Amino acid sequence: MSADTPGQVKKIVIVGGVAGGASAAARARRLSESAEIVMIERGADPSFANCGMPYYVGGEIESRDKLLVSPIERLQKRYRLDVRVRQSVERIDRVNKQVEVRDLVTGETYTESYDKLILAPGAAPLRPPLPGIDLPGVHTLRNLDDADRLLAAALGAKRAVVIGGGFIGLEMAENLVRRGIQTTVVERNGQVLTPWDAEMVAPIAAHLKGQGVDLRLGDSAEAFEQQGDGLRVRLSSGAELDAGMVLLSIGVRPENALAADAGLEIGPRGGIKTSPHMQTNDPHIYAVGDAVETTDAVTGEPTQIPLAGPANRQGRIAADHIFGRDSAYRGTQGTAVVGVFEMTAAMTGLSEKACARDGVAFEKVYLHPASHAGYYPGAEGMSLKLLFSPSDGRVLGAQGVGGEGVDKRIDVLAMAIQAGMTVYDLEEAELCYAPQYGSAKDPVNMAGFIAAGVLRGDQPLTHDPPTENAGVLLDVRTPGEFGAGAIEGAINIPLEQLRDRTGELPQGRPIVAYCKVGQRGYMATRLLNQLGFDAVNLSGGYSTYKQREQAAALAGEE
Amino acid sequence: MSADTPGQVKKIVIVGGVAGGASAAARARRLSESAEIVMIERGADPSFANCGMPYYVGGEIESRDKLLVSPIERLQKRYRLDVRVRQSVERIDRVNKQVEVRDLVTGETYTESYDKLILAPGAAPLRPPLPGIDLPGVHTLRNLDDADRLLAAALGAKRAVVIGGGFIGLEMAENLVRRGIQTTVVERNGQVLTPWDAEMVAPIAAHLKGQGVDLRLGDSAEAFEQQGDGLRVRLSSGAELDAGMVLLSIGVRPENALAADAGLEIGPRGGIKTSPHMQTNDPHIYAVGDAVETTDAVTGEPTQIPLAGPANRQGRIAADHIFGRDSAYRGTQGTAVVGVFEMTAAMTGLSEKACARDGVAFEKVYLHPASHAGYYPGAEGMSLKLLFSPSDGRVLGAQGVGGEGVDKRIDVLAMAIQAGMTVYDLEEAELCYAPQYGSAKDPVNMAGFIAAGVLRGDQPLTHDPPTENAGVLLDVRTPGEFGAGAIEGAINIPLEQLRDRTGELPQGRPIVAYCKVGQRGYMATRLLNQLGFDAVNLSGGYSTYKQREQAAALAGEE
Repeated sequence: MSADTPGQVKKIVIVGGVAGGASAAARARRLSESAEIVMIERGADPSFANCGMPYYVGGEIESRDKLLVSPIERLQKRYRLDVRVRQSVERIDRVNKQVEVRDLVTGETYTESYDKLILAPGAAPLRPPLPGIDLPGVHTLRNLDDADRLLAAALGAKRAVVIGGGFIGLEMAENLVRRGIQTTVVERNGQVLTPWDAEMVAPIAAHLKGQGVDLRLGDSAEAFEQQGDGLRVRLSSGAELDAGMVLLSIGVRPENALAADAGLEIGPRGGIKTSPHMQTNDPHIYAVGDAVETTDAVTGEPTQIPLAGPANRQGRIAADHIFGRDSAYRGTQGTAVVGVFEMTAAMTGLSEKACARDGVAFEKVYLHPASHAGYYPGAEGMSLKLLFSPSDGRVLGAQGVGGEGVDKRIDVLAMAIQAGMTVYDLEEAELCYAPQYGSAKDPVNMAGFIAAGVLRGDQPLTHDPPTENAGVLLDVRTPGEFGAGAIEGAINIPLEQLRDRTGELPQGRPIVAYCKVGQRGYMATRLLNQLGFDAVNLSGGYSTYKQREQAAALAGEE
Repeated sequence: MSADTPGQVKKIVIVGGVAGGASAAARARRLSESAEIVMIERGADPSFANCGMPYYVGGEIESRDKLLVSPIERLQKRYRLDVRVRQSVERIDRVNKQVEVRDLVTGETYTESYDKLILAPGAAPLRPPLPGIDLPGVHTLRNLDDADRLLAAALGAKRAVVIGGGFIGLEMAENLVRRGIQTTVVERNGQVLTPWDAEMVAPIAAHLKGQGVDLRLGDSAEAFEQQGDGLRVRLSSGAELDAGMVLLSIGVRPENALAADAGLEIGPRGGIKTSPHMQTNDPHIYAVGDAVETTDAVTGEPTQIPLAGPANRQGRIAADHIFGRDSAYRGTQGTAVVGVFEMTAAMTGLSEKACARDGVAFEKVYLHPASHAGYYPGAEGMSLKLLFSPSDGRVLGAQGVGGEGVDKRIDVLAMAIQAGMTVYDLEEAELCYAPQYGSAKDPVNMAGFIAAGVLRGDQPLTHDPPTENAGVLLDVRTPGEFGAGAIEGAINIPLEQLRDRTGELPQGRPIVAYCKVGQRGYMATRLLNQLGFDAVNLSGGYSTYKQREQAAALAGEE
């Protein structure tokens, strides 16, 4: 009575039972009621909410059970999966289409045959060979066992050191502070959250410090030593930090050993290579999730981006293809969001760094809109950066940092990138507006207006104040704003007086105008250029200038 | 020294100084420093925040000044506009290219010439010729003078009657309740917020009642009488309501008299007809905003949608075209959002009603996802409805009702509609995910999965339980859920037991499966159909069923 296609698929073995593996298993069952589906998970818990673990450690998520998205019993009963936990696949025998499995509890091994094999082993936290790295107080965070250990450590610790200022590092820092723990974050680079451009996340660094986090950029751990009940962390700067616990969160490496040993192709960044159907070079073996190399959806270049959303979609696609469907993965766009105390950083597509690295031509604009209409209470500021193609205006990437509404604008821009839309399309986007939710000209529209204005030649922009004598720096804010802080060397003529005071501007020298966020500066350049001056606007105004200064100062702390 | 193009534009007269008119004026100035720009506004305040007025009446926005987005002085100084308030354009002399203006304070009239005229007169609240409609206590809300009057009335009133349950009616009801006023909302139709489909906004109606609003659907005002200090409102149902104040918010009509008198073309719904450049049939006269007929961006049919976002974009486009640019309006998508106490209703594109009216073939799916990962505190439920083309999967429209995150998903889907994306694209959308912000499979992805499943034949759906004897109604929820409330006639076999209990299902009869929201029902239909049964899933499950029942009951109150 089975409707399976192709009919010959009788048995699927899945290595790894979290995001990609669990999605593949559920999808496979929906496509085939008759297939035998074996899911082998090294840890104790398949299908757990790994993105929730920092909040479980911090107590925001109170119950461990909440993290068990699909308990084993449900996977067995609802999806009729053969779930085997605390078992590890040690070897793939491609010729005989079977795997060797070790039971991590009993130590026994056995072989299991497959028609199709799906590898979803994930990625492992990096543990560089530093002295003391294996001391019990040096934690990583990958599964619920780790989370339990971290929670136990956090309940007893007064001081903690987090090595690495990425997603997990910052989320853990927030949650350790929530537990009342004095927390240091050590990050090798001159900025936190390295997928973002430095000037965009400078406010995140400042916010971390404002919350009492001891942030040390441009420094790294060199050794760990036992020191009484705790640990001493020696940094490359020479500093020494004492802490009751250490979290190592400096990145992950794809779990490729099983695949590599079986002769499956591995990409230059360590990810298992797959076709868009998530098929490895062995047509009977698929790979999904953090362990695979994917394609950058914008550039088409190979990339390695460990994210839950892509893992889930890839699992689905692998199961689809096993059952004869043509589903294909379109590549990873790098859409990501992270909450850091009261702030949000989100991004999608290419950063400026990625453009530079991959040789992608880009133009950029900055803006600082409000989350919703300024006249309605509770509006929060945000900073947006939009990257786009200077030739055709195609949206390449976007970054947002602020509070409310940042994730919304980045999601909207993620759709624009997926659809290949241009900045001219952003101008015409019709988005929700009521004063609690947005503005009649939404931040996304504003980004489009500015970017399209650049491409049309209406909005000549610069990203740097003129160097000495190379031009005139004109601050068009009010005297009050100017007095409270301005860029060195600027002269102040408020926009409202500019028409009557153009005589004060030096003749024959280019002018860089700026205001707080770029809007009055834009009006000033329109006005001046029509009167025969040679004026450009400082993109993002004094706000972006300050962010860039802040980023340079942070990087200079190295 | 002017860079104007075309050079011959020397003087622009703009009729109306709020959203569309103000945008046109600012854009015109940015495009031409030398043009003379005269803005003539009937009210006292150009460029005020009309969408904020209900919240000013309710006290959420405390200061009236907050609503003055661009005070006259700024318009004069920053944009060098010749702003004339409390003046009304009474007549257009197209032959001589001049308008007749009346000063509403002095009563004097004068003529003003133009090279280009932009009409942005807006739309006026409907005031049907009912007995007593002109009594001083019967208010409408269009400008700040109205808001001031409403605020004064609200401060003294104990009871209020709002006629009309649209955007303004519901926003005002919330704000009157905020002032401690006993508020009745009278709506002629069997649902509130008529642009939405009835079942989607049934929870809004329930929420209004839960907040103490006396909601009367299917009823309308027939007469108003002075009754002591207050008013008595007689309804068509025969009911009589006493109130200290009445707000009439039953819709608006485009202000077309000036245009019609001048022989400009008017559409069947009363809006001024324009080209995509916002040009009327007189090439020297443009029209923008609530007064114009626009094109539905999805169907291409003429439509009349008064919204601030489109008005702003149209103003920009008119100014662009006047100065020789090719900007064109792409039509209005009908993206809208409204907050009603703690709830949000948002929509974009076509509703089911609109599809039916315009003969657009559609399929629909319902879902009830959480605003963010269920394991993270504070997740709120929402209901989504997605309409799409049964032939190619193109997204036609979407509606969302709930709390947090509804506006975000509708904005994302608005982009999908603008870009002509399909439900298959929604499956692959890569959106922000961290547990505070969304889910690894975002509600937008889920909508895509379900809709694409329908088109691929994986997800046979129905929207109605089987009529008696026409099929088997199978509830696959837990016995606890079933016991707490189920659809009449259903038998209960929990999904987890279904494989072992298929023998209990009557042979040879079609099965309609359902669960709480549709997900287990989907799994059940996959399972059953592969075992040779003929099963379909009830879209949106018991939750949508209840919303439809609720909507029918509300409409039945007529």
